[in-house]
Amino acid sequence: MPPLPEKVRIVEVGPRDGLQNERETIPTATKLAFINKLAEAGHSQIEVTSFVSPKAVPQLADAVEVARALTPKAGVIYSALTPNMKGLERAIEAGIRRVAVFTAASESFTKKNINMTIDESFAAFTPVVERARAEGISVRGYVSTAFVCPYEGDIDKTKTLAVTRRLLELGCDEVAVSDTIGAASPKDVFETVGFILKSLPAEKLALHFHDTYGTALANVLAGLQLGITTFDSSAGGLGGCPYAPGASGNLATEDLIYMLERMGITTGLNLAKVAEASSLIAQTLGRRLPSRQWQRLSSSGPC
Amino acid sequence: MPPLPEKVRIVEVGPRDGLQNERETIPTATKLAFINKLAEAGHSQIEVTSFVSPKAVPQLADAVEVARALTPKAGVIYSALTPNMKGLERAIEAGIRRVAVFTAASESFTKKNINMTIDESFAAFTPVVERARAEGISVRGYVSTAFVCPYEGDIDKTKTLAVTRRLLELGCDEVAVSDTIGAASPKDVFETVGFILKSLPAEKLALHFHDTYGTALANVLAGLQLGITTFDSSAGGLGGCPYAPGASGNLATEDLIYMLERMGITTGLNLAKVAEASSLIAQTLGRRLPSRQWQRLSSSGPC
Repeated sequence: MPPLPEKVRIVEVGPRDGLQNERETIPTATKLAFINKLAEAGHSQIEVTSFVSPKAVPQLADAVEVARALTPKAGVIYSALTPNMKGLERAIEAGIRRVAVFTAASESFTKKNINMTIDESFAAFTPVVERARAEGISVRGYVSTAFVCPYEGDIDKTKTLAVTRRLLELGCDEVAVSDTIGAASPKDVFETVGFILKSLPAEKLALHFHDTYGTALANVLAGLQLGITTFDSSAGGLGGCPYAPGASGNLATEDLIYMLERMGITTGLNLAKVAEASSLIAQTLGRRLPSRQWQRLSSSGPC
Repeated sequence: MPPLPEKVRIVEVGPRDGLQNERETIPTATKLAFINKLAEAGHSQIEVTSFVSPKAVPQLADAVEVARALTPKAGVIYSALTPNMKGLERAIEAGIRRVAVFTAASESFTKKNINMTIDESFAAFTPVVERARAEGISVRGYVSTAFVCPYEGDIDKTKTLAVTRRLLELGCDEVAVSDTIGAASPKDVFETVGFILKSLPAEKLALHFHDTYGTALANVLAGLQLGITTFDSSAGGLGGCPYAPGASGNLATEDLIYMLERMGITTGLNLAKVAEASSLIAQTLGRRLPSRQWQRLSSSGPC
């Protein structure tokens, strides 16, 4: 069997990708408590918000307040999405030191999601990346619908590679190859990520899986076997993409920690503390979360 | 990467393992409709009930009625658990042609579960296996707590191999190596099942995973890579083990079908029809089921 890595870095996207897809908007104070708890749990990178139009994503309308009110813990990077210059400027003012831009491998998806072609999306965020880097702010890129698109179906791996490479050449230090609607299987991961790895180094890639179809942890195993060591997840399994039909549920951080640690792979994270953080959101939403670990640990018990 | 098989056989355990752990007892007529729908979905083997004391498992007290009232579909094997001679006799009378006996790799678990040592469990079902085979009835064996025991913790793979081999030598044609509480990771599967495969052939093994900890499909991937081609699952993700603390939720048949078919592995099953079968139970229970696929397809939508 392929060897497994000894360590994995988990990027916590709960406060951004998780919360942006909840119908209910979480109060700012609760978000801050959530983020603080996640930092206490040992996270080294937490994506705290997205500086986008409040009309587009009302759940994150308090981006500036959240970023400004953070009580930063040493050794933790607090990042945010900044799709345009206005968003970047607000992020810089609020003290954010790592940002992310996003595009997709599917033209139909970028069109439906942000009303641009892939080229137009690059035109829009190229100045963002350049300005961020000039300010000493690091940049991550996201490639959505890297495997499957809700409109186009299966995505050609050469397209996914092309967009990934273009983001790195632009100045992103890492690209999160994302299964936006969660439809990918381990075979898609082996084929597409395996193909990308023939041209680009594993250290510059992260895998961002959704669990809508139940395959997220199996996809993580495939990623580990390919040598990928950075994975995104969302506390409790919150989140999805509002513009992707049927999308729901990031890979749950608690479930990812459980599997990795059980496999002898160090995460540096405290599962119980992540579950406590998730509970803050669960209480506000008044519902159970998808994470199996959270369900096991929470008093309401399993389904 | 290790090659993947072209075909997998799924053993549907929903009507037995699934229903035995539901607090509510499903009416016999609903169970029969459930089983018929599962057969229509393409299942070739359905574990329909367990011939045990109604005091032990009240949810399956109607074992004889269910077995007798089955409208058998050609090409479908309807099996049942028969832990003792009385159960076997009732099964034979009711027309069952495939039975199963069970034990565990953990002494503590057999003690707590059925109040016997492993040796005593073999003593109890050896006559069952012999009588069944004399009647031309095929027999499957289950090894519970094959990887992790809720009482003893990690299980030594040599114990799991010993019990598995003993069941095959007794006359079982297949042994289901079972992660009873769902705590195993792919690494446990590679180590324990890999070890077993040095002595026993893959064709005689099945893997029975629970999704309590979220690792079931990742464990299936590990099993596929080892060359295992028979996996158990439960429609909708029902089930667990009443005697294992915290156990809940078999691997969901719909989720297993999705991943395998997406990987180009033939199952012979119709996912939507399995989900319809699951819905019959969901309606009676009045709650959502854990299966991600079922959630996507059912009108109540995702979490």
